Amino acid sequence: MKVEKVYLYENRKDVSLTCYIWDDSREMLNGKARPAVLICPGGAYLGCSDREGEPIALRFASMGYHAFVLRYSVYDEGGAFVLEDPAMLGSLLPKKICQYPNPMIEVGMAMKFIHEMSDSWLVDTKRIAVCGFSAGAHNAAMFSTQWQTKIISDALGVDAEYVRPAACILGYTLSDYTFLSEYLKGELSPELQLLYAGYNISYTGTAVPTGDILDKISPAKNVSSFTPPTFLWATSEDNLVPVQNSIRMAHALADQKVPFEIHIFEKGPHGMALATQASAGHAGDMNSDAAKWVDLCDKWLEKRFAFIENAKDE
Amino acid sequence: MKVEKVYLYENRKDVSLTCYIWDDSREMLNGKARPAVLICPGGAYLGCSDREGEPIALRFASMGYHAFVLRYSVYDEGGAFVLEDPAMLGSLLPKKICQYPNPMIEVGMAMKFIHEMSDSWLVDTKRIAVCGFSAGAHNAAMFSTQWQTKIISDALGVDAEYVRPAACILGYTLSDYTFLSEYLKGELSPELQLLYAGYNISYTGTAVPTGDILDKISPAKNVSSFTPPTFLWATSEDNLVPVQNSIRMAHALADQKVPFEIHIFEKGPHGMALATQASAGHAGDMNSDAAKWVDLCDKWLEKRFAFIENAKDE
Repeated sequence: MKVEKVYLYENRKDVSLTCYIWDDSREMLNGKARPAVLICPGGAYLGCSDREGEPIALRFASMGYHAFVLRYSVYDEGGAFVLEDPAMLGSLLPKKICQYPNPMIEVGMAMKFIHEMSDSWLVDTKRIAVCGFSAGAHNAAMFSTQWQTKIISDALGVDAEYVRPAACILGYTLSDYTFLSEYLKGELSPELQLLYAGYNISYTGTAVPTGDILDKISPAKNVSSFTPPTFLWATSEDNLVPVQNSIRMAHALADQKVPFEIHIFEKGPHGMALATQASAGHAGDMNSDAAKWVDLCDKWLEKRFAFIENAKDE
Repeated sequence: MKVEKVYLYENRKDVSLTCYIWDDSREMLNGKARPAVLICPGGAYLGCSDREGEPIALRFASMGYHAFVLRYSVYDEGGAFVLEDPAMLGSLLPKKICQYPNPMIEVGMAMKFIHEMSDSWLVDTKRIAVCGFSAGAHNAAMFSTQWQTKIISDALGVDAEYVRPAACILGYTLSDYTFLSEYLKGELSPELQLLYAGYNISYTGTAVPTGDILDKISPAKNVSSFTPPTFLWATSEDNLVPVQNSIRMAHALADQKVPFEIHIFEKGPHGMALATQASAGHAGDMNSDAAKWVDLCDKWLEKRFAFIENAKDE
């Protein structure tokens, strides 16, 4: 394996793609290309969490896929946004770089870069999944539902088909801003109100987005026949991103007859990543039930990303 | 993650250690050391198979451990020994470099190197497992049963305790040469006779080793209270390395009251590695039952290599 970090803008260090590339071997694929998974860590568009980067990449790599971690534009400009004073969140000054549609376009830039490198890295460009967690799942879902639009092809200067994703994997995603804006009018804790205010300022430039923008930034409102097969997982007691977001995304996929699979575990907080010690910061990040999402996803993805000929499950 | 290949001898390129080192993150271990797994690929001491190298390293890395792949001295001197004419095997000219005890000593050299790098790489040197497959499992088991002997400490110039392994993981291992020498007198196919002749010439310098050497190179004869907890797996229908080798090793561990776990699956040929597409050369290398060894091993190892405080299985 080689691991390389590249920057997607010439003059910026905050948007990067860390590439985990399998060595070729004549005992295995012997020059044949491998499928890949492109991962967007979460962090409320304020930061990008390491816990949803390398641990996830290594787990997908261990399934035989090349893996890529995209650190897209966030408020903290490449950092993990460590909060010193939560009260700051409600009064962040908007920044253009991390606002819609930039993070979504950067998923496309990463896809385009992977395509450009595919000959030397042996990437099967017809089989690249986009994957994300929390706000990173929102970003992955934004791309998986809007990759075919002019926003993407104009920004990248290529035909949209060139960056078509083959699958989408979403952990505890945000998906529906109309729902969220109603939810935020409810009796939420002051901390949660502040977090969402910061999140919204970062991604939309305003603490309480309204009007047309709500639909544009809601993947659940933009599912279509262009949307790839999607795997979702979440926990029902997530008290940061309400699980209705995953359910509404599944509902939209069902409505549009897009193949999907969803697993909602009862227990576990927001942000468990792999839910094992490999991605944990403390014991609360681990849960042996929720950790089963990985094997479920492995089986689901392998149906689409099989790369050994004549293999059958015995 | 950084991936680095280093050479264990100054003037030779055939013995190498490929190091898969996790990035530290203040969101996860934040400067704390991680346990590690040192992997010996198999290949009958004729070569080292890629299929039992990187795929295994990535799977253990995905559990949160640093991983290392040791390419020890083999007849093909760093290669995978692709056989053009099986008839060659019976008449290989002996080479000193790949003979006992050199490959075992090189496991110690790798351990010593990992210790020397442990401060900068954040390796928990009290928790390093040795792991191997087929002849690589034999080599790992040679070390796990003989690390405390003068052969190792004299060769390394350090106190043996310095390179003490914390656990041992053996896939379809060889373990008992007395048994094997009887087995080879049986009605084996000419191909298998030739393969064992080549294997024995490579590791002992003679096609039919006899006498004292048989005990010295039999891990099952050298299990003691110094031997670390051991995890074994194999398939009962392995027609290359008879499964009795795994059973005899388990028997010896039981006799010496060394904690162990063994899983013998009914179906599957020799050399399945992960038994998934990640390590397969063709469909016959995959088996969804046998592939369960990895999760069983993950759970077993985590009991010893837990690195998140106050974690419990919920």
